Amino acid sequence: MALVPVAVVGPLQIELGEYELEEPEGRLVERSRAPDEVFVPLANTEGGLSISVSRGARAAQESGGFRTYVLADRVTRASAFLFESTAEAAAFARWIEQQLDEMRSWLESEPMSGLSKHAKLRELETHVVGPMCHVMYAYTTGDAVGMNMITRNSYALDQGFVTERAPVKPRRALLEGNMGGDKKPSHRYFERGGHGKTVIAECTLAEDAVRRVLKTTVADLLDLAFVGTHGAVASGMQSVAFTPPSAIAALFIATGQDVGMVGTSSMAHGTAHRVDGGLHATIRLPGLEVATIGGGTTLPSPRSWLRLMDCEGPGKVYRLAQVVAAATLALEISASAAMATAGSENFYKAHLERGGLR
Amino acid sequence: MALVPVAVVGPLQIELGEYELEEPEGRLVERSRAPDEVFVPLANTEGGLSISVSRGARAAQESGGFRTYVLADRVTRASAFLFESTAEAAAFARWIEQQLDEMRSWLESEPMSGLSKHAKLRELETHVVGPMCHVMYAYTTGDAVGMNMITRNSYALDQGFVTERAPVKPRRALLEGNMGGDKKPSHRYFERGGHGKTVIAECTLAEDAVRRVLKTTVADLLDLAFVGTHGAVASGMQSVAFTPPSAIAALFIATGQDVGMVGTSSMAHGTAHRVDGGLHATIRLPGLEVATIGGGTTLPSPRSWLRLMDCEGPGKVYRLAQVVAAATLALEISASAAMATAGSENFYKAHLERGGLR
Amino acid sequence: MALVPVAVVGPLQIELGEYELEEPEGRLVERSRAPDEVFVPLANTEGGLSISVSRGARAAQESGGFRTYVLADRVTRASAFLFESTAEAAAFARWIEQQLDEMRSWLESEPMSGLSKHAKLRELETHVVGPMCHVMYAYTTGDAVGMNMITRNSYALDQGFVTERAPVKPRRALLEGNMGGDKKPSHRYFERGGHGKTVIAECTLAEDAVRRVLKTTVADLLDLAFVGTHGAVASGMQSVAFTPPSAIAALFIATGQDVGMVGTSSMAHGTAHRVDGGLHATIRLPGLEVATIGGGTTLPSPRSWLRLMDCEGPGKVYRLAQVVAAATLALEISASAAMATAGSENFYKAHLERGGLR
Amino acid sequence: MALVPVAVVGPLQIELGEYELEEPEGRLVERSRAPDEVFVPLANTEGGLSISVSRGARAAQESGGFRTYVLADRVTRASAFLFESTAEAAAFARWIEQQLDEMRSWLESEPMSGLSKHAKLRELETHVVGPMCHVMYAYTTGDAVGMNMITRNSYALDQGFVTERAPVKPRRALLEGNMGGDKKPSHRYFERGGHGKTVIAECTLAEDAVRRVLKTTVADLLDLAFVGTHGAVASGMQSVAFTPPSAIAALFIATGQDVGMVGTSSMAHGTAHRVDGGLHATIRLPGLEVATIGGGTTLPSPRSWLRLMDCEGPGKVYRLAQVVAAATLALEISASAAMATAGSENFYKAHLERGGLR
Repeated sequence: MALVPVAVVGPLQIELGEYELEEPEGRLVERSRAPDEVFVPLANTEGGLSISVSRGARAAQESGGFRTYVLADRVTRASAFLFESTAEAAAFARWIEQQLDEMRSWLESEPMSGLSKHAKLRELETHVVGPMCHVMYAYTTGDAVGMNMITRNSYALDQGFVTERAPVKPRRALLEGNMGGDKKPSHRYFERGGHGKTVIAECTLAEDAVRRVLKTTVADLLDLAFVGTHGAVASGMQSVAFTPPSAIAALFIATGQDVGMVGTSSMAHGTAHRVDGGLHATIRLPGLEVATIGGGTTLPSPRSWLRLMDCEGPGKVYRLAQVVAAATLALEISASAAMATAGSENFYKAHLERGGLR
Repeated sequence: MALVPVAVVGPLQIELGEYELEEPEGRLVERSRAPDEVFVPLANTEGGLSISVSRGARAAQESGGFRTYVLADRVTRASAFLFESTAEAAAFARWIEQQLDEMRSWLESEPMSGLSKHAKLRELETHVVGPMCHVMYAYTTGDAVGMNMITRNSYALDQGFVTERAPVKPRRALLEGNMGGDKKPSHRYFERGGHGKTVIAECTLAEDAVRRVLKTTVADLLDLAFVGTHGAVASGMQSVAFTPPSAIAALFIATGQDVGMVGTSSMAHGTAHRVDGGLHATIRLPGLEVATIGGGTTLPSPRSWLRLMDCEGPGKVYRLAQVVAAATLALEISASAAMATAGSENFYKAHLERGGLR
Repeated sequence: MALVPVAVVGPLQIELGEYELEEPEGRLVERSRAPDEVFVPLANTEGGLSISVSRGARAAQESGGFRTYVLADRVTRASAFLFESTAEAAAFARWIEQQLDEMRSWLESEPMSGLSKHAKLRELETHVVGPMCHVMYAYTTGDAVGMNMITRNSYALDQGFVTERAPVKPRRALLEGNMGGDKKPSHRYFERGGHGKTVIAECTLAEDAVRRVLKTTVADLLDLAFVGTHGAVASGMQSVAFTPPSAIAALFIATGQDVGMVGTSSMAHGTAHRVDGGLHATIRLPGLEVATIGGGTTLPSPRSWLRLMDCEGPGKVYRLAQVVAAATLALEISASAAMATAGSENFYKAHLERGGLR
Repeated sequence: MALVPVAVVGPLQIELGEYELEEPEGRLVERSRAPDEVFVPLANTEGGLSISVSRGARAAQESGGFRTYVLADRVTRASAFLFESTAEAAAFARWIEQQLDEMRSWLESEPMSGLSKHAKLRELETHVVGPMCHVMYAYTTGDAVGMNMITRNSYALDQGFVTERAPVKPRRALLEGNMGGDKKPSHRYFERGGHGKTVIAECTLAEDAVRRVLKTTVADLLDLAFVGTHGAVASGMQSVAFTPPSAIAALFIATGQDVGMVGTSSMAHGTAHRVDGGLHATIRLPGLEVATIGGGTTLPSPRSWLRLMDCEGPGKVYRLAQVVAAATLALEISASAAMATAGSENFYKAHLERGGLR
């Protein structure tokens, strides 16, 4: 057994959305919004992490709290079909792009055993390069991350539907040809989502909270945003952010998420700009891969931590995604503030005293 | 407490290098090479992961084993200095680029309390954009990851050396301006390293082992490599690989590494090509951030798992980096083989039967 | 006046497709395919360029010629709307995503003067980040590149449709917020197209032609492809290719295309793999921005060069795109062959003798 | 012959630096700075381009003019050596990294005919991946772009020096393995330079000039910078800029530069932020590939246009690079201003009236 200590932090004040998927395209619709207060469990061995998330949460609370939005929900498996020529691959692409409705019906007809009803095919996109046609099957998977179920359904599509019916037979069918984005950060999924929930947390920090709680100023934070954004661009980061993986890893371990997905789930696009009376700050996580059922979430300890956040079991995954986003923004705010002080003195002190990254 | 079950897998047969740092530039020198057999602990909740790493290890063993190399060792903190104009930033850059030797002496003179002797400044690079000069301080940090110690030393440099001596005074000094690559994958660190160990594992799979152990053929694996490499390019991945984060996360949790660094540590550049009698396969991890001392490695459970691999304590970090790289390649080999079979049938079956990703 | 000498090269033997746009979505449909022989004009001051394109064309001709495919046709203008909050931006996105049909009707109703009938709105995509909603308007523009016309129509949409009807009023509307891909290479447009024609040229080089015409071997070319593909990945290139811009610039100058679009039009994803009897080679140009009417194509000299290729005037733009792709592949083949010879001797000799890049 | 009309625009008021290369490392040293007024020739068929560059130049002039800096000068040829194993490639890398001084002496000893004295080897960097070792030879090449001469010298190094002396013989030597950055934009060269001059132009726009000449406000321009920077990040652009290729293509055609290099030369990283009394704006061109001798610059028309700018012949290449950067910033300023007005009305009008992109 590996053991990681868990600290509970909060409460985070969050205005959360309630979401539903429209059938059959799987577009997310916001049904309502409501405020809540949530305590979050952080599994980590850094002293400073919890203190920093707390501080960010407090600054937000004194500024009206966080607001969170789920923009999209998808999980992608990208099969690849190899042909003798581009001619064949292009003809195949034209054909398969017309099969979405048919595929949905076929999957629902239970043509094979082992298929998942929870993995619903929502979109299909092709990419022809050389003699290959990559096919991105995009699903929704309920409250699970769903890599397992979409793998089974995609295999069924490839073997039972595509290779049976395609007017041009592929020389080879591969269940995944590496455009699917599983666990590896890529621009495709940074921009568009397609691996988990696309979620944004925002907060308008009041000038006073910045000064009293965060010990810095709006002007300082703006200078940091200017430097940090251009630093991210200069280094070719598929993110603009300071330290999302610290918060996300801590929440993932505590709640039994797949830690192999910390990298993709932590791709982040943050913004900051001055508004009347303070600073508007946001973070966009394009592919947050969280679950409230299945996998590691079924173990007792994760289950209890999910329960603490009222995120246990079916129907809770969008709530969990929003809580993770809010906690991530809380850490961004506090870490940025530590960095933005003159010479980043507070960031340094945190490292000196607490051995933490903030 | 968060609990994650740990499975022990192996042995992995590895020919490992012994490395030393040359003073003062910190260039790695290989002193010797020796074969070894290593059991590795994988903390995870997926049934299939251990089976898959085992299978890859067996295929390698029947083919002469893995060989591993550490190419470089660095950890970077990128301070940023903001000026009134590009003129000032450029003049500052010209000045600071000449200060490396002086900075080294200064740090050794113990000018401030709280500095780390283990974090040795090796290189310094500037990047001027707009009115900013980013300064990448690249250190080695012994057997620790060292973010903490390089933060303290960089703060000392910024506040005690740079702002004191610079002929052009910055309007603002930030300890980190986001070019430093901490926890966020970026092209800079994918290509060049600079966050942890740059390590390569290789293996020449014998045709027979591919057939008997991996249940596939060299031709199948080559087709997969062709499709997977172009799929990675098409989706803008800063990697060419299938599933490094699964292996790396499992080893990181077991051995008390910083799980927030799974994303950067899993950036990977894999290759595969046909050679006489089989397939040559490699994986390059440009920024593997592992430690054998400090942080989570000091807890009893991580310590015992490190001991199992003979990677506990001082002087063992290059060994640990190589073992992680070999285990990652073992998983790549097995997962690729499952995917390369006709229609990726074996990959599908693994998901159906074991709920695993391989 | 700037003068650039033009050389005529060929003939290129090409099997070309005939394409039409389906209304109203603007999906490309291939109506027929037919072989042709085409001479191409190359405006350049390098001696070696024409010789190299010729040689590649001859190798292809002895191998059955080139085959070309147009996969997609789009030009994008990405307006951006700035709001007080992400809440507003997200609500706006949900609204505007439903307006595509309505916008099409509105544009056709001639609500403002100066609109273009040739720029037809095909798709609309949103991207919410921070308090912004970027809106990618994707058009087809007939035989023109059409930046001008889509700018006018997008302005009309922003000012006459969106800001009038949106349930949430933006604080600011910008005609282009830099996601539109105009003249600047980006991953979005490398992967998906959206700026010009997405076109692939392919060729199966016969072993004999490789030896006699290209003075190299299939094995040599495969080694080069292996090295060159991984070199592209390692350097973070949004391309896998050797020298497309040389061919594309020469054709652009000769035919009066916008030379500012050479960079985006030269993004290229090439592949090469062994097939029975030879080597299959392709190049994919995701965003080739060519026109047969308007802009510089109306001048006498460009017009005559377009006529030489039977690409002058309306109805010829897909033909032109395919000819450019074939010429680009001809150069890739020849330059690669020069590089693939032992020690790249032939590439070197070309530089020594002719001052050319091949 | 291809003919392109040329317009002369200006004067641009620029404070330019005088630079020299330090021997033998080739570091640039600024010797002095002096103001000048320069007229620039723009070869293009867009009515709006000249008007827009003029307007930007006038706004700069009323604000104290442009200031330009050359930060670095390099041209790279990246040979690749293929081995039987990573072991060999890594051993080779360790060896070749120590050969820089020896190589310089060897090249100076005229070991082969056809070598160029103007191409001076300055740096050498290796990149080991799989069984390959890429070797980036970085040169300076005087007033020429120098692809030709560095190709010859690199071939000599590969064949006469490396394969003779290397303790581990490569299975294959390729003159270029695609890490060299020739004509294809990549992150490596966007960040670090290495293909031409790294040059920055800056300007502090006075509030009054923004209002009177540019017809917009500093606040408007800041909002545009905010949106445009995040739009660039979202779309995976290896640039943050609006329309550098328009200016650079026009100057390249007029002055006989290699138009195939417009894409790489136009990679740009722009910044804008508020300062007392106005807006500080910069553009960084990391790899501007210009020449004042050789290639197309020797033709009469380019020569006369170079003369107009006092950039003809030897000793003028840094001046030319700075003038191009200033003209590029002039266009950025004016195009941005047109876009930043309410609803981007002025940008639209430019398209409506003049068929221009500004």
